[in-house]
Amino acid sequence: MIFEFAKRRRTIRKFNNNIPPLNDILYAISTAKEAPSGMNSQPWHFLLITNQKIKDKIREIAEKAEKTFYENSKGKLKNFLLNHNINWKKEFLSNAPYLILVFSDKRFPFSKESTWLSIGYMLLALEEKNLSTVTYTPPNPKEISKIVNAPTLYNLEVILPIGYPNENKKKLSRKKLEKILNYDKF
Amino acid sequence: MIFEFAKRRRTIRKFNNNIPPLNDILYAISTAKEAPSGMNSQPWHFLLITNQKIKDKIREIAEKAEKTFYENSKGKLKNFLLNHNINWKKEFLSNAPYLILVFSDKRFPFSKESTWLSIGYMLLALEEKNLSTVTYTPPNPKEISKIVNAPTLYNLEVILPIGYPNENKKKLSRKKLEKILNYDKF
Repeated sequence: MIFEFAKRRRTIRKFNNNIPPLNDILYAISTAKEAPSGMNSQPWHFLLITNQKIKDKIREIAEKAEKTFYENSKGKLKNFLLNHNINWKKEFLSNAPYLILVFSDKRFPFSKESTWLSIGYMLLALEEKNLSTVTYTPPNPKEISKIVNAPTLYNLEVILPIGYPNENKKKLSRKKLEKILNYDKF
Repeated sequence: MIFEFAKRRRTIRKFNNNIPPLNDILYAISTAKEAPSGMNSQPWHFLLITNQKIKDKIREIAEKAEKTFYENSKGKLKNFLLNHNINWKKEFLSNAPYLILVFSDKRFPFSKESTWLSIGYMLLALEEKNLSTVTYTPPNPKEISKIVNAPTLYNLEVILPIGYPNENKKKLSRKKLEKILNYDKF
């Protein structure tokens, strides 16, 4: 069952205008906060954004840095981006009905690790509610943290734009199990 | 449903002698590999250990470093460890029927983040199969990587000892949602 959700889930960058129930969003965050963490420190913090002006501002600041990032990309990365039709424009930051910004609290050991583990929980809970997202990591997390007045103790780990899909995408394929698994020794 | 598994799951450090079906272990790894990753790089690698000699060796090397770590721990960390009856002994490394070592491939951007997200997937899949674990992060991952001949491009992120529980533990409580969630701005 968990496998089925994991298998079914694919990254979505285009969202339609239907607004998901707030309860489904809170369900996913409630799931994330059940994750384990070093010393049970629960070093995560979530910011749920629906205000259009704040979303627009985040998009503006992120896209400014994305332009530079894309101009400087080369090799494999550049090819991947071209082949997958990904560019500096991040419409989803202003178009998705919800943004969840996920922060880790630097004061705790393994805060990054624990927070990303909790993001894994969240993605599966979103999938269960038929909600789509992309794990978007902006090139300039600190600038974006400032816009939303995040305490400097927090690292912005990811932005999850959330909504219902407005694109028909196949999931990118995964390697076979034998390619990523060894027994006893390498 | 995902929430129920997340809520139910608790960390277990003591395992009984019953050996879980290999298929349940492979189910959890198969779930983990469906996780998203930057550029779909799938920067994770899993090592599944059942060989007793290798488990014993890992325990020996980890415990040597743990002794130093515990001798040097102080303050909040020391109190947490004492209160939760955690010490330098890591019996689970040799007693658990299975160890999964999870590595991230340093060559890819966001390899740590993606790998920990996939560990989140794995924990929920294990819980679905009524399997228990603890996300154990040894103080000396490089020494342990050497024992199992891991390529130096790989970082050992976590060791998951897996089996059925031999302790009756309550899950440590989590903060209320309102403590970890803000709306629109901090």
